[in-house]
Amino acid sequence: MSGHPALTALRDALGDALSTDPTELEAARGDYSGQRRAGVPLAIVHARSIEDVQAALRIATEHQLPVVPRGAGTGLTGGAMGGAGELVLSTARMTRILEVSAADQLAVVEPGVINAELNTALEPTGLFFAPDPASRAISTIGGNIATNAGGLLCAKYGVTREAVLGLKVVLADGTLMELGHRTVKGVTGLDLTALLIGSEGTLGVVVEATVRLLPLPSGSPATIGAYFPSVAGAAAASAAITAAHLRPAVMELIDEVALARILAHLELSERAPGSAYLLVQTDGASALAEAEQALAIIHEHDGAAALTTDADEGERMLAVRRAFHPAMAAAATVLIEDVAVPRSALPAMLAAIREIGARYDLEIPTVAHAGDGNLHPNFLFTGDEVPPQVWDAAGELFRAAIRLGGTLTGEHGVGTLKRRWLEEELGAPQLRLQRSIKAVFDPLGIMNPGKVF
Amino acid sequence: MSGHPALTALRDALGDALSTDPTELEAARGDYSGQRRAGVPLAIVHARSIEDVQAALRIATEHQLPVVPRGAGTGLTGGAMGGAGELVLSTARMTRILEVSAADQLAVVEPGVINAELNTALEPTGLFFAPDPASRAISTIGGNIATNAGGLLCAKYGVTREAVLGLKVVLADGTLMELGHRTVKGVTGLDLTALLIGSEGTLGVVVEATVRLLPLPSGSPATIGAYFPSVAGAAAASAAITAAHLRPAVMELIDEVALARILAHLELSERAPGSAYLLVQTDGASALAEAEQALAIIHEHDGAAALTTDADEGERMLAVRRAFHPAMAAAATVLIEDVAVPRSALPAMLAAIREIGARYDLEIPTVAHAGDGNLHPNFLFTGDEVPPQVWDAAGELFRAAIRLGGTLTGEHGVGTLKRRWLEEELGAPQLRLQRSIKAVFDPLGIMNPGKVF
Ligand SMILES: Cc1cc2nc3c(=O)[nH]c(=O)nc-3n(C[C@H](O)[C@H](O)[C@H](O)COP(=O)(O)OP(=O)(O)OC[C@H]3O[C@@H](n4cnc5c(N)ncnc54)[C@H](O)[C@@H]3O)c2cc1C
Ligand SMILES: Cc1cc2nc3c(=O)[nH]c(=O)nc-3n(C[C@H](O)[C@H](O)[C@H](O)COP(=O)(O)OP(=O)(O)OC[C@H]3O[C@@H](n4cnc5c(N)ncnc54)[C@H](O)[C@@H]3O)c2cc1C
Repeated sequence: MSGHPALTALRDALGDALSTDPTELEAARGDYSGQRRAGVPLAIVHARSIEDVQAALRIATEHQLPVVPRGAGTGLTGGAMGGAGELVLSTARMTRILEVSAADQLAVVEPGVINAELNTALEPTGLFFAPDPASRAISTIGGNIATNAGGLLCAKYGVTREAVLGLKVVLADGTLMELGHRTVKGVTGLDLTALLIGSEGTLGVVVEATVRLLPLPSGSPATIGAYFPSVAGAAAASAAITAAHLRPAVMELIDEVALARILAHLELSERAPGSAYLLVQTDGASALAEAEQALAIIHEHDGAAALTTDADEGERMLAVRRAFHPAMAAAATVLIEDVAVPRSALPAMLAAIREIGARYDLEIPTVAHAGDGNLHPNFLFTGDEVPPQVWDAAGELFRAAIRLGGTLTGEHGVGTLKRRWLEEELGAPQLRLQRSIKAVFDPLGIMNPGKVF
Repeated sequence: MSGHPALTALRDALGDALSTDPTELEAARGDYSGQRRAGVPLAIVHARSIEDVQAALRIATEHQLPVVPRGAGTGLTGGAMGGAGELVLSTARMTRILEVSAADQLAVVEPGVINAELNTALEPTGLFFAPDPASRAISTIGGNIATNAGGLLCAKYGVTREAVLGLKVVLADGTLMELGHRTVKGVTGLDLTALLIGSEGTLGVVVEATVRLLPLPSGSPATIGAYFPSVAGAAAASAAITAAHLRPAVMELIDEVALARILAHLELSERAPGSAYLLVQTDGASALAEAEQALAIIHEHDGAAALTTDADEGERMLAVRRAFHPAMAAAATVLIEDVAVPRSALPAMLAAIREIGARYDLEIPTVAHAGDGNLHPNFLFTGDEVPPQVWDAAGELFRAAIRLGGTLTGEHGVGTLKRRWLEEELGAPQLRLQRSIKAVFDPLGIMNPGKVF
């Protein structure tokens, strides 16, 4: 055990909750971005309670020790990675669901509760927590809040910000703050709850959340799996579905490169080489009627499609989308990107991705949440390190998104990976303003330094 | 014209946009709270452009002149009132709708656009801007944003925060900041858009907004007007409707005192003395089916109710709710209050209002957005000044709301009127944090001083 003076104080205050186990420290150097920090963190605190988090932060402040908040470590931008001389503060073991109120349609949870586990616990109530990142089986609600996670359902049901009523947060100096309300509405003073959501551990540690629940949509969903001769056709169909004022719960687009890889991975034969895929799912009382309208639009756009209300058949259509990440991971090392553009710019963004891929001679299979203009271009490469030309191509891609009125991250956040492009999007004056706000919460700059800002 | 040195600079920079017309200054001393500031403001700027706002703020900073942003002045908490030595900066004449994009389901507007006028302009698109304060025919979108306005529809369609994608804001020193995105999703850095929403003119002046539009619900709405023997029964029915996972677009509760005054005002006979009223409106494809379920629940709770899909008949049921403000204003001088509690605490809050009314011998007719636990108790009194015992009673009412897990303002904001109770809700440490954040935006403290903080 290293001789850092803070370690003794942490051990005294936290006992078993402090770990310097080399395997754990090694794991905490990385996250699902595939990156790792150069050094190894000093120690990891597995907080069991709010008091543990407060104690750790008080000692960190006293010793000016950098602190990296961490949930399940499923982040894709390096936000939870701990490096040399840093203390990793994990909330992953704070896993209690403290309250479910059906009458108030809310739950109070500790930050380490896994997203999907909350929803399993909610099943008897007929209510659900709407944010559904593709990582919902493995990511924590604290991490979802810290990244303002989105997912497949969020075009219709909102991102994490819309699902959080109040937060308990511990600041860098150990102060516990209660933000927000148990009420659906409330406008007393500045909305610090919203400010904390998506702040990626740079303002404080989320130690409890009061989340809003929604009634599960009634009836069976209706699902459409549609094959198009090209991704342009699929994008046009999705735009037409939006223009018809339909609001599918799920509308996912898979481009030609990605689809070919997925079908090969699933050992399914390609319908026609070069096809693209559009998955549409409607829900609620008028699910079938809405799906029938969507189907007609798909046919008008030369889509070959099947519509089902059968659960198993719907599941098979969804499986194509679900196989995206596994298929890419099986094929190569992957840099998962995440730009968002106004919905009307989806075709232009898809064209830009293809053009950049051709110019850099890279394969960039892409999946998009078409209902909200959020694309995940995946850069495939070999080896462990992201090659420089992939970063160059990614940089061009971010700039193309910004030029189209979009943003360099729709839902994954900035972390360490996108820091260098942040100023291009925000501009220097706004970045300065953001840094000054961070300094109010964290005057010593110990909260997740080197991330975002 | 007063000899304040800033006035000459303002006149040079702004020409006709600067006014010292005594009638205008007199009007700018007050708002719809019925309060007025003791002194008269120095001048009012009727900004025509972003540049006007920047020029005014640069000069204000140079001369350390307090600035009061103002929209239509329909606020109910004194937030837009200008006092002695202050400059009122009105965005009410910046009334252009700059863009409507049906494809991206967004509009870009200047802050002075009246809420209802945007919706009128949107009619041909089949889209709407969801925030619908009861003042929508007279309040500006800039004011709606600055107060995070809610309304009848917001339990189903969200408050103003959910309807804003991006903002242009001028800070105290005249810097123009572009916050947020044209995209539905985006997580680059801290969410300053959300921080500005509801900030009541204390952080900067909103000079442009990119707002999100939603498809108008299809079909005709179904409306229920229900009379209950007591407000307790009406509250229980509304809770049961929520518990049945119905999501009415409108669910408004009117207590006995208010209903008696409204019926007298409309020259309608009372059904039974002491009745309360519950208005329920469902919309979308399954409007009628949902309304039928709600009706059954109402009958189980001894409500006498009619259900209609006829527009005129629905309008007559809504008219009872719409007559609330006029009926109160016709009867007496009114202090319109605005607490919110968790939905399950609605009956307890209604009981607390009645108890406080009895103890102070005050009439407190109350209407509630029952779908989100937001109550508007109205204090009736005679004379122009709010009598001290009304303030005492209001103070007890705020504390009761906070004790029930609620908040002292659901949608109207803090302004000058609720400042003295803010610390009771937020606690001293959070209030200090909020003040420090304000200081980042406004180091000289010239933005709407004396409001909120
Ligand atoms: C296969 C796969 C699919 C994914 N799909 C999606 C998707 O569809 N949508 C999406 O948005 N994301 C997606 N992600 C990214 C990731 O899962 C989300 O960002 C998730 O919200 C992170 O949760 P976590 O618990 O793993 O947090 P971590 O990765 O541990 O941390 C993420 C960030 O949050 C901070 N943090 C964590 N806990 C706290 C806390 N208690 N207090 C303060 N800060 C904290 C960390 O410092 C870090 O900056 C995906 C990831 C994978 C691997
Ligand atoms: C009959 C009636 C019914 C009402 N019903 C509701 C309701 O249902 N829900 C609800 O939420 N409110 C309601 N209100 C209150 C009020 O109408 C809202 O708060 C509205 O949003 C205020 O808009 P305004 O343009 O009148 O703003 P103002 O009253 O002029 O200003 C309100 C606040 O916003 C600030 N502000 C205004 N414009 C800007 C700007 N461009 N930049 C920065 N700050 C600015 C001001 O400084 C002030 O603090 C009602 C009022 C009345 C009179």
